[in-house]
Amino acid sequence: MEVTASNFKSILPDVEKAINNCTFLSIDLEFTGLDLVRNINAFDTPEQYYQKLRRNCKEFLVIQYGLSIFRYDEEKDIFHNETYNFYIFRRPINHNIPDQRFLCQTSSIHFLVNEGFDFNKLFKEGISYLNVVEEEKYRNELEEANKKVTDSIHSQQNGTNDVIPIPPDAKEFVDNVVGQIEEFLQSDQVELQLPKCNSFLRRLIYQTKSEKFRDRISVETRKMDNKDRILFVTRLKSKVEEAEMQKQKYEEQLSELDAFVGFTKVLRMVVNSGKLVVGHNACLDILHSLDKFLNPLPADYEEFKELTHSLFPKILDTKYMSSLEPLVEHISSNVLKNLLESVSKEPFEIPDVVIEEEEVGYSLKDEKEHEAGYDAYITGLSFLAMWKYLGSLSGVKGAEIFTNFDLLQPYINKIYLMVLIENQYMNLAGEDLTVSKDHVFYLTFPKEWKMNNIVQLFSPFGNVYVSWLDDTSAYVGLYKRDQAAIALSTLSQSDTYSIMTFARRQALLMGTQTPFASPIKKRKSVEGQPAAKRRKTNSGSFSMSKRSIDPIVEDEEEPAEPEESSSKKVFMEDQAWE
Amino acid sequence: MEVTASNFKSILPDVEKAINNCTFLSIDLEFTGLDLVRNINAFDTPEQYYQKLRRNCKEFLVIQYGLSIFRYDEEKDIFHNETYNFYIFRRPINHNIPDQRFLCQTSSIHFLVNEGFDFNKLFKEGISYLNVVEEEKYRNELEEANKKVTDSIHSQQNGTNDVIPIPPDAKEFVDNVVGQIEEFLQSDQVELQLPKCNSFLRRLIYQTKSEKFRDRISVETRKMDNKDRILFVTRLKSKVEEAEMQKQKYEEQLSELDAFVGFTKVLRMVVNSGKLVVGHNACLDILHSLDKFLNPLPADYEEFKELTHSLFPKILDTKYMSSLEPLVEHISSNVLKNLLESVSKEPFEIPDVVIEEEEVGYSLKDEKEHEAGYDAYITGLSFLAMWKYLGSLSGVKGAEIFTNFDLLQPYINKIYLMVLIENQYMNLAGEDLTVSKDHVFYLTFPKEWKMNNIVQLFSPFGNVYVSWLDDTSAYVGLYKRDQAAIALSTLSQSDTYSIMTFARRQALLMGTQTPFASPIKKRKSVEGQPAAKRRKTNSGSFSMSKRSIDPIVEDEEEPAEPEESSSKKVFMEDQAWE
Repeated sequence: MEVTASNFKSILPDVEKAINNCTFLSIDLEFTGLDLVRNINAFDTPEQYYQKLRRNCKEFLVIQYGLSIFRYDEEKDIFHNETYNFYIFRRPINHNIPDQRFLCQTSSIHFLVNEGFDFNKLFKEGISYLNVVEEEKYRNELEEANKKVTDSIHSQQNGTNDVIPIPPDAKEFVDNVVGQIEEFLQSDQVELQLPKCNSFLRRLIYQTKSEKFRDRISVETRKMDNKDRILFVTRLKSKVEEAEMQKQKYEEQLSELDAFVGFTKVLRMVVNSGKLVVGHNACLDILHSLDKFLNPLPADYEEFKELTHSLFPKILDTKYMSSLEPLVEHISSNVLKNLLESVSKEPFEIPDVVIEEEEVGYSLKDEKEHEAGYDAYITGLSFLAMWKYLGSLSGVKGAEIFTNFDLLQPYINKIYLMVLIENQYMNLAGEDLTVSKDHVFYLTFPKEWKMNNIVQLFSPFGNVYVSWLDDTSAYVGLYKRDQAAIALSTLSQSDTYSIMTFARRQALLMGTQTPFASPIKKRKSVEGQPAAKRRKTNSGSFSMSKRSIDPIVEDEEEPAEPEESSSKKVFMEDQAWE
Repeated sequence: MEVTASNFKSILPDVEKAINNCTFLSIDLEFTGLDLVRNINAFDTPEQYYQKLRRNCKEFLVIQYGLSIFRYDEEKDIFHNETYNFYIFRRPINHNIPDQRFLCQTSSIHFLVNEGFDFNKLFKEGISYLNVVEEEKYRNELEEANKKVTDSIHSQQNGTNDVIPIPPDAKEFVDNVVGQIEEFLQSDQVELQLPKCNSFLRRLIYQTKSEKFRDRISVETRKMDNKDRILFVTRLKSKVEEAEMQKQKYEEQLSELDAFVGFTKVLRMVVNSGKLVVGHNACLDILHSLDKFLNPLPADYEEFKELTHSLFPKILDTKYMSSLEPLVEHISSNVLKNLLESVSKEPFEIPDVVIEEEEVGYSLKDEKEHEAGYDAYITGLSFLAMWKYLGSLSGVKGAEIFTNFDLLQPYINKIYLMVLIENQYMNLAGEDLTVSKDHVFYLTFPKEWKMNNIVQLFSPFGNVYVSWLDDTSAYVGLYKRDQAAIALSTLSQSDTYSIMTFARRQALLMGTQTPFASPIKKRKSVEGQPAAKRRKTNSGSFSMSKRSIDPIVEDEEEPAEPEESSSKKVFMEDQAWE
C-alpha cells in the first residue's frame, strides 16, 4: 500500500496492530544516493566501513521506506502479509525544522525514475520525520517559549528587554498603527486587521503594543492564504483569557510537532515490538533507519553496535544468509531479484503467503523491483523460502519450522558488508571477525604504473588481488598466502616503489606506531570460522580497476574494451547496492 | 514551448533562427538550490560576493532554462516573441560523463514542486549539456582511444601490453569460450553470442581473442535491452574491413558526444549572436550559464568579469534597472511578479507583443510564475515597458524607441547584487563601485550578547545596521556616518568586546596587514555615483537577525513573535531570489 502524508495518519493504527502481531517484518529503503565505491576499499575493516558509511548517511536522504509485515498462521500453515510503501520527505516548515541541504547522486536518481519512482509525489506528499535529537530540540524550544510567555502574562512584566529604537523612516508607519489601534479601541469592532508589513515593522508593532497597550489589546500574527503574515488586534479581556489563549496556541504547536514526528512513529513501533527485522544487503538500510528516524549515528563504532542491538535485538540480512553454506550451493547470485528467482525453484519452496486485502500487499506479478515496498516483500519471501529449506534439512516438519527461530541463529545480527573481500560481516551482537591480512601489502608506485606493472612485480609469488587507493598506491593481496614472507623479503624497497605490510600501514594511519616498528597488533585468524570461509566467490575476483570491484555483485558496469585495458581507467563508477 | 530531450533536436534550427534575428532575449533559470543567505554578508564586496556564489554554483544544478526571444517589427511597431522552456538534466551515460553528486535545498525543491515543476519529466527527459572543458576532455579521450585501435590494426600488433594471468577459477570459463569460438569458425553462423559474464571475464576474453584469434574474429560488446552487456563474435574478413568498422564506431561515438553537448549549443548560439541578454536578478543566472554550459567559473574575479564580458557583451539586469531613478519612483517592489504589476500600469505601458505560434509562447493569463520560460517572458515584458518609459521621458517617439539602445546605456553590464547594502552592483565592463565603509565596524562580543547589547553600545552615536557574522561577531554600520571617528575613539577596546574598523578587518582577512597597522587601502567614495545613490530602500532596513536581511526583498520569513524578540533566533532562513 502506498502511504503519503495524505493517508499516513489514518493507516497508522493498522500498521501498529500488524507490527505487534507479526512473526517478522522485512524492510527496504531507497535513497537519493549511495556513493559507495568512491570510499570503500576491499581491505577495510568493518569499523572503517562503518565510519565511511556514516559520513555517507549524513549527506543523502531516505526517500522511500518499504515495510512488509508477515504473520504466521500455525493452524493453516500460511503467512498473512501486509506491505506498506512510505514516501519520505521532510519539508522545511519553520525554524525548528531546518531547511536541509542534501546530496543526490545522478545515477541513483536516474535509476529510480526509470524504475517508475514518482519524485513529484515524493516532494509534494512525502511524510515528515524527526530523529530523537531533532524532536527533543523542537520540543524544548516550544516549552521554553511557552514558559516565557506564560510567565510574562502572570508577572505583568514586559516580555522583552530589547527595546529597538524606531528608525526615522518607520516612525510614520508606527504612529499610523497606534492611531488605528486607538480608533479600534473606541469602536465596537471585534478585531482590527493591520496593514501588511515586513518582519521588522511587525517587531516594532509588538514592542509598541507592550509599551502603550499592554493590558488592553492582544496582537496575533496570522498566515493568510496567500502566505502573507498579517497582524490582527483584538481587545484583551483578562489575564485568564490571555493565559487560555496561550495554552491553546501551545497545544496547537505540540500537535503540529506530533505531525512532524511522522514516519518516526513507525520506526518506534518496530523498536517497541522487538520483532525480527529482515533486510537484504541491509547495512545502509540500518544505518539510515537509525540516523534519520531514531538516533543520529554515534561517532564510535562500538557504541553504534550497542545502540543498534538495543533498538533491534534481532536483525537478519538475507544477503549474508544466502552467501553461506548450505544455502549458497543453490544460489548462483544473491542480487535480490536473482535470489528470489533461485528460491522460487527446487530445492526451495516459498510457503503460502496470503495478502489479506489487495490494497495493502503486492503480488509477485507486480514486478515492481526497486520500489521499497515490493523489495521489502520479496526480501521477506526469499527469507521464508530459505528458512523453510533450513527446516527441511534439519528434519523439522510442517508448522514447526516457522516457530523454530533456532534455525536462524547462525545468521542473526550479522550484516553483509559489500565490497569487502574475505567475507567480512558486521557482528552487531559481538566481536567482529578479525581477518588475517598477513598476505596483503601496501604498495606505492609512480603515477605511470598500471595494473600490469603490479602484476609483473608480484608474478614470482602468484596471482594478486589489487585494490587501488589512488593513482600511486594500492593494497595488493596474494592469492598464495604462504608466499607473503618471501615476497616481502624479496621485494623489500626500491627507488621506484615502496612496500610495507598491511598491518604497518594501518598502524601508521592510526598514528599508533612509528614507521619502522614492527606490527604488534594481534590478529585472530579467519581459520575456525568455517561458515564464513565457505562463502562462495565468483570467477575473476581480482580487481581490474583503480577501485575495488565486488566480485559478488552483478556487473552493471562499463564494458572493458580491449582498447582501454592498459589504461588505469575506472571501469565501474558505481555498483548496484541490493 | 516546453523542450525536453525528446523534441530538442527538432526545434534547434528554429531556436537558432529566432536568436539570430532577435532584438534581445531574456533568460531565467531554475536551480536545485540557492544557499544564499548562509554565506553572503551585507557588507561583502562584489568580489567576495562572487567567490561565495562561485562555490554555490559548483554544488547546485540548473534544472530549467527559460529563453524568451523578442524581435521588433519596426513597420508594425510590435514585438514578435518565441519562448522556450528547457528541462536540463544530465544523466550518467559513460565514464566520460561522470556520475554527478549535486546538492538540493529542501526549500527550493518544495517551492518548485508546489509551483508545478515536474521533477519526473526533468529526471526522465532532461536535456544533456557539457561545458567546454568537459567536452574537450570527452573528445580527447575518444580521439586517443580511436588512434590506439587504428594504429594497432595497421601495425598488426597486440593492442594491449597488459597480459593478465588467468586465475584458476576463470580457466574453465575461458576454455569453454575458446571452444565455442573455434566451433563458430567452422560453422556457417553469422555471429556468435557469448554467455553473459562480468567485466573481468569480458576483459579476459578480449585478451584471449588477441592471443589466439587475432586475424580471424572481431569481438564487440553490445548493451542489451535488459542492460546486460553481452559479447558478440563475428568473423573478421580483412584489415580494411576492421579499420572500416572502427571508423564507423568512432563516428557513432562522435555523434553520441554531439548529443551530450545538447543544451550547450543553445548557449553557444546566444554567445555567437552577440545580442542583448536581459535577466532579472541575473547574477546566479549568469554564473550558472557560464559554469554549466560554457566555461567553468574562473577562480579569479577579474578574469570572470573579462570572460563574461567577452561572451555576453551586453547584459541588462531588470532588477538593477528598476531600482534606479527615474524608474524606481513608480515601482514599489522589484520582485519580478510585482515589477510586472507595476509596469502594467501608468505611467508604464507594455508594448504590443505577438506570439507567432501559440505553442512557442506564453500568455500573461498563464500565470506560470517560477516556470523558467514564463519568468523569462515576463522579464522581457517588464524590460520593454521600462525601455518605452525611458524613451517617452527622453522625448523619443514611436518606433524610434526600440532602436535606441542608448536609452539603456546606464544599465548595461551592471548586475544587481542582492543582500548587499549600499546599492552595490557588479560592473562587468569596468571597475566595480567602491563603497566607503568608514562608518562600519567589526565587533566581537560574548556569546550572550543580543541585538540590544549592540544597539545600546552604539546608542550615543545613533542608529546602527547590524550584520551578524556568527554568535560572537558582527559588522555594525552607523546611520550617522559622521559619528564614525568619535565612535571608534570613544568605544576603543574593552574586556567584554573588541572593535576595529571594517578596513582593518578586511586587511586581516586578506593577510596583507598586521593587526595594528593602519588601513592603507585607498577607497573611492560612493559620491559621484548619483544613480546608484538614489536607489530606494524600504523602512526597517536594519537587521533583526543574526543574518543579514535584504531590505528590498519581499518578506516571506518567519514571523517575529514578541516572545522571541530577545533571543538571537534567525528569523529568516532564506530569502526569495527573484
